Amino acid sequence: MSVSLEDIRAAADRIAGVAVRTPLFEHPALNERAGARVLLKLENLQLTGSFKIRGAYNHIRARLDEIGPGGVLAWSSGNHAQAVARSARLLGLKAAIVMPADAPKTKVAGVRADGGEVIAYDRNTQSREEIGARIAAERGAIIVPPYDHPLTVAGQGVAGLEIVEDCASRDVRPEAVLVNCSGGGLIAGVSLVVKDAWPDAAVYSVEPEGFDDTARSLEAGTRVANAPGGVSICDALLAPTPGEVTFAINRRMLAGGLTASDDEARAAVRFAAQTLKLVIEPGGALALAAVLSGRFKGAGPLVAVVSGGNIDPAMLSEIIA
Amino acid sequence: MSVSLEDIRAAADRIAGVAVRTPLFEHPALNERAGARVLLKLENLQLTGSFKIRGAYNHIRARLDEIGPGGVLAWSSGNHAQAVARSARLLGLKAAIVMPADAPKTKVAGVRADGGEVIAYDRNTQSREEIGARIAAERGAIIVPPYDHPLTVAGQGVAGLEIVEDCASRDVRPEAVLVNCSGGGLIAGVSLVVKDAWPDAAVYSVEPEGFDDTARSLEAGTRVANAPGGVSICDALLAPTPGEVTFAINRRMLAGGLTASDDEARAAVRFAAQTLKLVIEPGGALALAAVLSGRFKGAGPLVAVVSGGNIDPAMLSEIIA
Repeated sequence: MSVSLEDIRAAADRIAGVAVRTPLFEHPALNERAGARVLLKLENLQLTGSFKIRGAYNHIRARLDEIGPGGVLAWSSGNHAQAVARSARLLGLKAAIVMPADAPKTKVAGVRADGGEVIAYDRNTQSREEIGARIAAERGAIIVPPYDHPLTVAGQGVAGLEIVEDCASRDVRPEAVLVNCSGGGLIAGVSLVVKDAWPDAAVYSVEPEGFDDTARSLEAGTRVANAPGGVSICDALLAPTPGEVTFAINRRMLAGGLTASDDEARAAVRFAAQTLKLVIEPGGALALAAVLSGRFKGAGPLVAVVSGGNIDPAMLSEIIA
Repeated sequence: MSVSLEDIRAAADRIAGVAVRTPLFEHPALNERAGARVLLKLENLQLTGSFKIRGAYNHIRARLDEIGPGGVLAWSSGNHAQAVARSARLLGLKAAIVMPADAPKTKVAGVRADGGEVIAYDRNTQSREEIGARIAAERGAIIVPPYDHPLTVAGQGVAGLEIVEDCASRDVRPEAVLVNCSGGGLIAGVSLVVKDAWPDAAVYSVEPEGFDDTARSLEAGTRVANAPGGVSICDALLAPTPGEVTFAINRRMLAGGLTASDDEARAAVRFAAQTLKLVIEPGGALALAAVLSGRFKGAGPLVAVVSGGNIDPAMLSEIIA
């Protein structure tokens, strides 16, 4: 159940022409604020508005022969949901998505716009895994996991290949790479590539306060869970515990885990919209928040991954007002 | 008073390291909507939020020896204002900007944040040129024109060099290039480069309805003015008539002029925020609006320049609601 660089290169071939090769973007106003050179990997500009299409499309495309009329099924707070629905549409498959009843409307609408079926559940009282597994069995659908699978990790790792290529073409060798972290799929894939290219670079996860399961798991050396009942506006980063596949990679690859608060996430969303002219969702802005807030301090250059931009218009309006 | 490719290359050297080398960005959702391959030149991601820094910095840097303690002075609805204020700050000069009293707050705030002095005037009853010329004479300040000067045009033309380079690296040869147009400085600079690289490419200006002075001037073969009293949300594109320097270039280089309505601009701003995750101001989105609305139809590939992103939060909120 491990992931190799060859797996990531194979994923790159599979998703080429489907996923956007997103810009690695540098802005003087950000460098000035950060006091260091900062390169943003803009996965908010990705197809479906987050990096998730990389892993979802790679997973489904690689397993196409196994998939029958039941199509695919996934559970997700939203970004993976849209990625699976879009991947299914592109490949002519049915998709059913188990989503929390309080998922951002823009994410639910995104799934439906791609013809995906939305199955709502209560985040506080029901298990999405149980609901999803039952429906998948009834329909003969293939489950597309949001992070804890080698094919998913390999797809997300393609973002790492692009980061390394685009840094090389600018003669940049980053001191650190900051990646928003929920179940750990994106940072697992990215860190495999980054640490291969730059063994000295430090890769840090960034998680919301109260949802720092990866940071604490890295310290403990074993997977620990978040306390139940936490609340954060970073809806994309609320996984309760690191994945098995992902943590097996992350415990070897990561230098440590950072956190940022909701207020810091809001400030980063505001800075992005007002100064960088980018729409970023709170969970997608957390690595940027760690830089802007001074929670991460370094001489740079550093890379911060912007992982998604699917924010409800009402929340964006409130934050920029 | 003409502009050569050598002038534009000299400008590229002057503004290197100051202006952002903005991405040429392609998104499958836009291609799908447009029914053609569309590459967006993202000058909303430019320093100060619009392309204007290219021309302003090039102009001031090239004339640095002439500038005394009176500093620089400009008039502008906002984007040029911020560009001049930032260029002056970077070069250690004083800046005074004559701005309409109803300029977007975000643009006024941008000027002040860079230490620029804002001199308000009434767009309907006062002449900004007269006010500006009088104050510049009193202070011994150098006037930095918003578009009608070879140094300004040459600076904006650097965006054209980047478009040509980034198309070449992707083996793309555009059928058409669409550029938002007010006084015509950006499209003049871009068209000089583009027509040199691709003589068969058609370059079109895009203007707001009621402010299509360049389109009508191209048809008439001579500079004509807009009827007074027009209203548009595209505050960056309200120049009353083409510039002399710019029109001398544009009448030779352009294939014609397109228009788009305020409603089409709003739809483009909404599409950009919701699907592309980009903050674009209405005037900056007009070429995109011409594509999305079907006012421009072509097999592609085509390039559309996104010229700015300085939209007031209240207007962005209203448009995305």
